[in-house]
Amino acid sequence: MNKKPVVNVGLIGCGTVGQGVVKIFQKNIGLLEEKVGAQLRLAWVCDRVQRPLAPGVHKPRWTDRWQDVIGDPSVDVVIELIGGYEPARTIVLAAIQARKQLATANKALLSKHWGEVFSAARAAHVLVYFEAAVGGGIPVIQGLYEGLAGNHIERVYGILNGTTNYILSRMTAEGLDFGAALAEAQKAGFAEADPAFVIEGVDAAHKIAILASLASGTWVRLEDVTREGISSLDVWDVRFAQKRMGLVTKLLGIAALTKGRFSVRVHPALIPATHPFANVSQEYNAIFVHGDAVGDVMFYGKGAGQMAAASAVVSDVVYLARHVANGTAGELPYVSYDGRQSLKPVPFRDIKCRHYLRFTTVDKPGVLSKIAGVLGRNDVSIASVHQEPGEFVRKGKSQPKGVPIVIVTHQAAEGAVQSALKVCNQLPITRRKAVHLRIEDL
Amino acid sequence: MNKKPVVNVGLIGCGTVGQGVVKIFQKNIGLLEEKVGAQLRLAWVCDRVQRPLAPGVHKPRWTDRWQDVIGDPSVDVVIELIGGYEPARTIVLAAIQARKQLATANKALLSKHWGEVFSAARAAHVLVYFEAAVGGGIPVIQGLYEGLAGNHIERVYGILNGTTNYILSRMTAEGLDFGAALAEAQKAGFAEADPAFVIEGVDAAHKIAILASLASGTWVRLEDVTREGISSLDVWDVRFAQKRMGLVTKLLGIAALTKGRFSVRVHPALIPATHPFANVSQEYNAIFVHGDAVGDVMFYGKGAGQMAAASAVVSDVVYLARHVANGTAGELPYVSYDGRQSLKPVPFRDIKCRHYLRFTTVDKPGVLSKIAGVLGRNDVSIASVHQEPGEFVRKGKSQPKGVPIVIVTHQAAEGAVQSALKVCNQLPITRRKAVHLRIEDL
Repeated sequence: MNKKPVVNVGLIGCGTVGQGVVKIFQKNIGLLEEKVGAQLRLAWVCDRVQRPLAPGVHKPRWTDRWQDVIGDPSVDVVIELIGGYEPARTIVLAAIQARKQLATANKALLSKHWGEVFSAARAAHVLVYFEAAVGGGIPVIQGLYEGLAGNHIERVYGILNGTTNYILSRMTAEGLDFGAALAEAQKAGFAEADPAFVIEGVDAAHKIAILASLASGTWVRLEDVTREGISSLDVWDVRFAQKRMGLVTKLLGIAALTKGRFSVRVHPALIPATHPFANVSQEYNAIFVHGDAVGDVMFYGKGAGQMAAASAVVSDVVYLARHVANGTAGELPYVSYDGRQSLKPVPFRDIKCRHYLRFTTVDKPGVLSKIAGVLGRNDVSIASVHQEPGEFVRKGKSQPKGVPIVIVTHQAAEGAVQSALKVCNQLPITRRKAVHLRIEDL
Repeated sequence: MNKKPVVNVGLIGCGTVGQGVVKIFQKNIGLLEEKVGAQLRLAWVCDRVQRPLAPGVHKPRWTDRWQDVIGDPSVDVVIELIGGYEPARTIVLAAIQARKQLATANKALLSKHWGEVFSAARAAHVLVYFEAAVGGGIPVIQGLYEGLAGNHIERVYGILNGTTNYILSRMTAEGLDFGAALAEAQKAGFAEADPAFVIEGVDAAHKIAILASLASGTWVRLEDVTREGISSLDVWDVRFAQKRMGLVTKLLGIAALTKGRFSVRVHPALIPATHPFANVSQEYNAIFVHGDAVGDVMFYGKGAGQMAAASAVVSDVVYLARHVANGTAGELPYVSYDGRQSLKPVPFRDIKCRHYLRFTTVDKPGVLSKIAGVLGRNDVSIASVHQEPGEFVRKGKSQPKGVPIVIVTHQAAEGAVQSALKVCNQLPITRRKAVHLRIEDL
């Protein structure tokens, strides 16, 4: 490829993040061009409706047809910020076919179509960068994939969704129940109008699947991610675990990678209050990576927001444009996925951790021995029992029938605990389904 | 440049980190070659004495003459792990002249000879990577320079030295005085036999100078870094600030960059216990970067240790080797320093923050009014006064003559505070020189 004195960029999708990208292009153009080593020009902006753009040196052409951008042979770099599966997938594949270098923030698309996108990019000698897909402005994709390139990555875990972390922070700090905290998050502009996607952990699942794919050099499919959201969390347990056990509730994405096997899951987890994650509050994200050489490394920052995400997109564009300017784009594939390798998933039932179990039972002698018996017969060993609720007695309308017994287990397999709970939930002494949270001793 | 099916690497300096690099080459060679996209061969190891090497596929030749490595035309990538100024400088410049791609962990060399090294690399079309120079295995160089490429970096601050952080952690948690904590650090293998270099903040100054140079795109010289170490810290103040004010003592490197001006400094600082840095303890490092688009991003991990540093070196080698394998090395300069730009330093006396001042005075009425008078005449405004030592009364031999008065100021200029202290230290009521610590409201 030849060197180019001017690199032309086309932006497809000009919502919140897209408008942030335009802002950075307008404000920091001198800095960007210095890093690119060539002139950088925002040539096109494409969206269904015309959006207000920050003023400045760039005077992009407007279109509502993405074909105009991808069909323009002078365009070198395409930014895809439409999100979702379609038409994003069609656009991304068309851009790759047209040999445009690509920056995308689309975690849904990448996690679902990882194989298709990176195989196409490899075949067409096109770079696909996606720093904004995970962790907003935090440069974790690059850090994990390039900065720790000498390591076998054995574990990745993260607080990957700002909205759910905001909700959990409010429940923990203020004792709000889930519904009230969600309403606050919506008022603060965090949660979407239809929050199910986020609070059921789908967004976090997309992100941990991407991190696990990068870390393993294979494609970890969404259907192999075990997932549980936060909508059924009871603030009673959040507060009890915090006050009585020094455990903080977070929605975690967790990927474990050992020789030829992997497990990837998203669920609420109780973590020690001394872990750095315990102080990651509100809309912040953080990702821990454990490599066999480096040990633990953490990345932290705002996981969402217009300018944080735009920062990541623009950094991608700078490095794509550098390659274009120097005639080296596409020589080196970015993600080396070639479809050959695969890992076997570890069944969720085999994952071991400590468990927090809250039973609600009749107030009679012998109840504990019945529950303990069921746990024991299922190979679940009890570490501690908490039966004095104290300030945790519920008052008024929200008072459930029955008394709470909180049991913390030693390390036990998920499957064993689930079998035990199935039996316990059907005992005549049981007033309601047991609460089951996992304790992650990170 | 042509593509190469085999990339040859020469290692110069095979101490602790060098041996760690060999370990990773031997253990993770499959992973490394997959990322490089070519065969990777450790061809030479050079040191004054022959060291034990981890066994494996690589059978490097040994030499005690670095000229053998750099003079070998088949060597593509050179790793410099000698450290210090000479002969490292001569070797690095010779390697660049010989057009070897270079990975170095040498923060002393880079901070002192930034201009010379990167001008030579630019002229010779050679890449110089140095991820291990700051923050051990934490990929902060890449994160700051590439991952945040779209941002004007306005502030960088960090806990940059593991040994001093270990010492401060012990003083804070156990109430050890400086000497005892230093002895513990030495016993734990952290502090060098001659610890002056580290405890006087020289190592942290090298690192913040490098981060400031990267962040500003200019060369921030060591002589422009204001520096104060931790050896004169009194554990009394460390504990008092923690218990009475919720402030934790850390040795910080701080770089502030505003249009055309910069200030870079290393000194002990009191920071809020709620700041994520407060939980960065023992030998861990952490770096906060504030970019105009992304806001705050933090990087965290082990700042020292054989395998952490080796991880960073090997990641550099992987990306250098990728470029060699694909024939694209040197097309893109890494650091774009060209000597044209420069920033003006802000004099240290103009830097504003809150200040912690401990006076030790005679026990008479009117003392506070005298001190307050001097502060007021110097434009230093008092925020709070702490005169009841309680548990902080010193007992036994260590009891100083006089009583302590701790004053916390509002934001005030360094120069004003220093002028005021000069006068206060000469007042007849003063029993000993005032303690002066800066409070950083990060």
